[in-house]
Amino acid sequence: MEKIEHIGIAVKSIVEANKIYEALLGSAPYKSEKVESEGVETSFFRCGESKIELLEASNPESPIAKFIEKRGEGIHHIAFAVSDIFSEMERLKNEGFILLNEAPKKGADNKMVAFLHPKSANGVLVELCQEIENK
Amino acid sequence: MEKIEHIGIAVKSIVEANKIYEALLGSAPYKSEKVESEGVETSFFRCGESKIELLEASNPESPIAKFIEKRGEGIHHIAFAVSDIFSEMERLKNEGFILLNEAPKKGADNKMVAFLHPKSANGVLVELCQEIENK
Repeated sequence: MEKIEHIGIAVKSIVEANKIYEALLGSAPYKSEKVESEGVETSFFRCGESKIELLEASNPESPIAKFIEKRGEGIHHIAFAVSDIFSEMERLKNEGFILLNEAPKKGADNKMVAFLHPKSANGVLVELCQEIENK
Repeated sequence: MEKIEHIGIAVKSIVEANKIYEALLGSAPYKSEKVESEGVETSFFRCGESKIELLEASNPESPIAKFIEKRGEGIHHIAFAVSDIFSEMERLKNEGFILLNEAPKKGADNKMVAFLHPKSANGVLVELCQEIENK
């Protein structure tokens, strides 16, 4: 793992949460993005080499809607930056981690992503993400 | 906020969790520390400019014991590095955040720390921390 790429935070209203995190972090979100495949609207704030990603469910079946229903708003996942997501998935599988994806999929913020099951990592939903190179 | 200083993860057994996070992150913890005043045993892993802090309750009254009893193991807090914790606490108070500490206190890893109430920040327990200068 090269760094903490971002921390994902599940919120009920991204409009309201944007104001709170802008006040907390002292800077405005630099990007908003809707990821239809994941059922989420997102906004991103920079913090050092990492980012804070706010996530609002865009439909009632979204994993974010289910998370908030069960646990309330709060930290949803930690994403680590990796340079080769395929080899890292293979390595972690061999270490005994349970992968939630057979292959990387397209995530927000121009990334290839894959998730590890929280029960593999003491209740933490871990995301691996690799920047997609634009050629 | 200058960077994500660390992410705190509540675990039942730091011995077991150390093995899991060593496998996940690809490096061993660089430090273990008991913080009696907080009722925790901790271990720290480096990840880029940030750290992962594992937290095990050292007594049944520890906030970590209560957290795990209520929600299970998982992410407990995000800590942000600040250069002047007093002015940052004042700024955030004026922004409407609820501070859990009147004044900074001594935390793990040679830091002065203060916490914001999770209901101020969409369910996220936020820690501010400033390195103590050793003279």
